[in-house]
Parts: sequence; structure tokens; C-alpha cells
Amino acid sequence: MTRENRQWLLAKRPVGMIKDSDFERREGPVAEPKDGEFLVRITHLSFDPTQRGWLSRDGYVPAVPIGAVVRAAGAGRVVKSRHPGFREGELVQGSFGWQDYIVTDGTTDIMPVTKIDPGVSPEQALGIFGITGLTAYFGLTDIGRPNPGDTVVVSGAAGATGSVVVQIARALGCKVIGIAGGAQKCRWVVEQAHADAAIDYKRENVAQRIRELAPQGVNIVFENVGGEILEASLQNIALHGCVVLCGGISGYNATDPNASPGIRNYMMLTGRRARMEGFIILDYAPRYGEAVQALSKLMAEGKLKTVTDMQRGFDNIPATLRRLFEGKNVGKQLLELDER
Amino acid sequence: MTRENRQWLLAKRPVGMIKDSDFERREGPVAEPKDGEFLVRITHLSFDPTQRGWLSRDGYVPAVPIGAVVRAAGAGRVVKSRHPGFREGELVQGSFGWQDYIVTDGTTDIMPVTKIDPGVSPEQALGIFGITGLTAYFGLTDIGRPNPGDTVVVSGAAGATGSVVVQIARALGCKVIGIAGGAQKCRWVVEQAHADAAIDYKRENVAQRIRELAPQGVNIVFENVGGEILEASLQNIALHGCVVLCGGISGYNATDPNASPGIRNYMMLTGRRARMEGFIILDYAPRYGEAVQALSKLMAEGKLKTVTDMQRGFDNIPATLRRLFEGKNVGKQLLELDER
Repeated sequence: MTRENRQWLLAKRPVGMIKDSDFERREGPVAEPKDGEFLVRITHLSFDPTQRGWLSRDGYVPAVPIGAVVRAAGAGRVVKSRHPGFREGELVQGSFGWQDYIVTDGTTDIMPVTKIDPGVSPEQALGIFGITGLTAYFGLTDIGRPNPGDTVVVSGAAGATGSVVVQIARALGCKVIGIAGGAQKCRWVVEQAHADAAIDYKRENVAQRIRELAPQGVNIVFENVGGEILEASLQNIALHGCVVLCGGISGYNATDPNASPGIRNYMMLTGRRARMEGFIILDYAPRYGEAVQALSKLMAEGKLKTVTDMQRGFDNIPATLRRLFEGKNVGKQLLELDER
Repeated sequence: MTRENRQWLLAKRPVGMIKDSDFERREGPVAEPKDGEFLVRITHLSFDPTQRGWLSRDGYVPAVPIGAVVRAAGAGRVVKSRHPGFREGELVQGSFGWQDYIVTDGTTDIMPVTKIDPGVSPEQALGIFGITGLTAYFGLTDIGRPNPGDTVVVSGAAGATGSVVVQIARALGCKVIGIAGGAQKCRWVVEQAHADAAIDYKRENVAQRIRELAPQGVNIVFENVGGEILEASLQNIALHGCVVLCGGISGYNATDPNASPGIRNYMMLTGRRARMEGFIILDYAPRYGEAVQALSKLMAEGKLKTVTDMQRGFDNIPATLRRLFEGKNVGKQLLELDER
């Protein structure tokens, strides 16, 4: 059997918003697994804002090298195995990258290859039971530590992680205010994710609306956006409140880090005796099982719905990453690779 | 006995750096204490960066009203008493304000009047055993929670609070890097406060110097300055590090809050799983005794020296507050009122 493997390589470090020309398309033969290796046909790729940082600089993981396949989480099926732990036909996930096939010994550059449990779809594995859902769960419960009755503001509330945070916080008895861009997303945040209220940052004065909706202040801010959106929440932080610093998508495409949107009113943390804390989900690997159990329970109880924005086709990969920064996706951004 | 009471009133909300014309000088008769009240002749006034905020806006305490005596901590002697708890001749402290005399029932606008223990000088009461020393102690131990061997960066290290933080951190077995403005202050931070190293922010690249001095990263940042100085520390924060957000003097005179120096690299908190937390010393009132005991012990052991920058004369009061923002003071800024 001969197969072609298509790949998107990183051609140069993107400046500002990513462009198709930052990547180089290559086709070549599919590698053969050696002893202790197996071959995966990748069916789905995950798109996450943090990938933008991987293209530019070393951070909590090393930058993607120039000329290497672009790093991304993915799901696929084992099509050939010379590894004792993985059998042909099994569904697996890992950091597979922007390509059709990968040969692996069970590790990928930033995470091990893991099997997808029976009854779990690739969408769920990459979404609610993947980085997206785990980030929402541990960020809210372990860093935010909400109490019933707390007011929680979630930015990027129609996004993959934000929409899950909204629903977990509601299930824990919190009052939830979601921030999103555009009437359609805001409607979704209230009607489908069941936030108590939504604020359209494109049309409304966010700080003023938070003040109206939470006159006693905001106990927990789950931050995915940063910049002026975070400033609006900080302006309304309650005494002893907490900002869960999950992401800052508004700054990810800044061309000059010194010109990126900072936060000017961070001294609110002092006046309100508040805490702002960051986390990286990879640190929670030993506790992933706990989150999967809790999220499964919420889904079984009908308290947690997930939504996937599924794009299709190898050639659409760069444009699909761009969707995140253009605010186009509702829910988890995935792409299904076309059969070859 | 007739006495004159001189007062500095707040004439208008200052814009940018405070000017003498923001205040109005008034003289008038000294009020007589009624039943349950006592009269204090104020001998010393305390100058603290946080006072700048009190002149402009409501915060953790209400703004000083226009036309009111300017709020400031002070020390003095009871000269007449019709209060059962305070006797003539006793030394006391409280939020006495910019004036020669105050009549009080034992409360002042933001804190109770308390007696100064025998053997404690007014300088010590307002400095090391006052807001300054308590802020250093609780900020470092309760928010920063250092372990022996940690690297601690202290900005404003030659200032009242910073210089105490440097010495407590050293006594707790930490490696301490102080940041201050000018060669003279830096020499003082190393030779007198015994920091392991000092960085002159006026002459050196702060971020680069911290990286050289702490290649493993900074575990605790005790922040008094904010803006670019805080950015330099954040750039070097260690995994699971902590920023104790005590003050942000670099922003206190900003004319436009939206143009005040913010922090652009706050997402370092996410990559490094770090925490930035504010506090207000007034919250620790029930635990002040614990700090006084610990600080007294360090002084008795010769591990904690204090330095006072003592200005003199009623007419110099506004200029003395300005010294803090001009970087002129080394150690605790006080003013002794001239006898009338």
C-alpha cells in the first residue's frame, strides 16, 4: 500500500495575524513504523489559542522549530502497529500536528499518545474530555474555588473553554455572566450555555454592564481574553476576588510585545485584596481522571452541553486556526481531515 | 490658654504631581474637648505613597473631601483629656491629619487612636511598628510565604517598607535583590539593609540584571513600584512564583488613569503558573501584635535596622509628601512639627 502524507510546516515566525504564507505545504511518502512504533492516520485536529504562542516563542513548551510540522493536538486511528501497547483499529489522541499520518513510539513532542475510551467520540476526546474541558474544570475549581452564590464572569464565553466554564459554574450554584462578541454568540451563551446574562463586548460598555449586573462585585473572573476585557472585570472585582488567568487571546497576535494590550488597573488587586493566578493544564495530568468523571456526570445529568465548530479539509488548516482570532468559532474549533 | 491650630486643607483634587496650590493653609483656634473627648498636640506626621490615592478618589478608604484636613497618620501627646481612657501626657497615634491639634473621642476617620507603648519612640510607632513595618511583615510572610533559599526581589528597596522587607527576607534565609534609584540608595540597600545585590533602575537594564542575578527565576516579588519595574520582575518570575502587590508608586501621579503605566506581560503569570496578590494592611489589625513581636525580636538580634528621613516644619508638609514621588527619601519619611 502506498500512501501520501500531506504536512503543513512552519515556514517562518508569524508577525501579527497568521497568514497562509507563514506555512509551507509538503507532500511525501508515509513513514513505516519500526519495532516499538505504530502508524496513526489522523482524522481530527484541535485548534486552541495557545497554539499561536507556540509558533512565535519558547514558553511553557518550546516553540515549534522552523521547518517542523506545526504542532497541534489531534485524534486518529492506528492503521499499522509494531508496538505491543497499541493495536490496529484503536482510536488514539496526542500532539500529532498538521499532517495526515504520524509514526510514533507512544510519545509525541509535548504529551503521550493516549487511547480514546470506547463510547467517546474524537470530538469529545479533543474537546470536553481534552485540553478544553480539563482547562475549564481545573481552572474554575482548583484556581477559582467557587462557592455557591458567587458571581462568576467568563470572557470568551462562547468559546470552547469559556462555554464549559459557564456551565460548570452554573452547576456549582454560581451566578454567571458571560462576555462574548456579537448578538448571536451572546444569545447562545444565555440560551444554550444557560448563563444568567451575557455582555456583547462589541456593542456594550463592558465595565458598566458588569457593574449593573453585579453591583456587589465579581468573585471570580475566568479570563480567556485579556486586555481591555480583563480591565473591565478587574474594575469590578469583589473583595478577596480571584482572576483565573487562563488565556489572553487579545494579545496573541500582537506584533510588538511592548505594544500588546496590557492591563493598566492591576492595582485594583491591592485595593480589593484580590488574587490573579495563572495555570497550565499539563500540570494536572495526574488528576485528569477526576475531571473526566465530574464532566461525564454533568453531561449525564443534562447540565453540560458541548458544541463543536467543525471545519473540513487539509487545505483549510491555516484558515481554521485564524478563525479563533477572528472570533468566528462558537464552541470547540476542530477540523476533520479529508480521506486520502 | 489660647492656642492656634494650623491646618492644611485639600483645596482641589491634584492632577499629576501634587503642587502646593492643591492645598490651602488655614489657622484658627484650637477646639476644646467635650465630655468623652481629648485634645492631642501632634508632633510627627507620617508620609506614605498610598496618601496620594486618598487625595484623588475613593478606594479602600473614601477620598479626602475637598475642604477637609488632609488625611495622614501621625503621633502626638495628649494635652487635655475628658476621656476616661486617655490621660494627659500620654503618647498616642492615629489618623490625625496635617494639623497641629486634633480633638478626638478615640476614633479617627480610618483608624482608632492607640497608645504608643513605653520605650517606643514616635518614629518607631509610625515606622517599623506602624503601617510601614506591619505592611512589610504581613505582605512578605502572609502573601509571599517565603521558604529559606527562595530568591526575593524587592522594588523600592530603599523606601520605608521595602527596606524592612529586604531585612526580614534575609533573616528568613532568602536571597534578596533590591531595586532602587541611584547609586547612593543602591549602596545603602546592600551595605545597610544587607541585600545580596541591588539594581539601579535609573542606570541598569532591570530585567537583564535580574536574569543574571537569578538565573533560576524569582520566587517572590515584593512590589512597591509597578509599571516597567514590575514588568522586569514578571519577565523573570519562577515557576509557581508570587508577586506581592503592595504598591505601585510609579502610577500614583498619572493624570489619566488610562495612560498610567500598566503591565503588558501579565500573561507570564500563566506560563509560569504564578500568582499576583494584593493586600491592605488594615485587614490585619487583629494580628498586629504578632508582627510587633516578630519585628522587635529581629531588632533585638541586630537583624533589622530602620532609617528615618525626618523633615521639619509645618510649612514643609506638602513638599515632604512630594519627596516620596521624587524618589528623595531613604527609609521612612516623617516630618516633625515645629513647636508653636
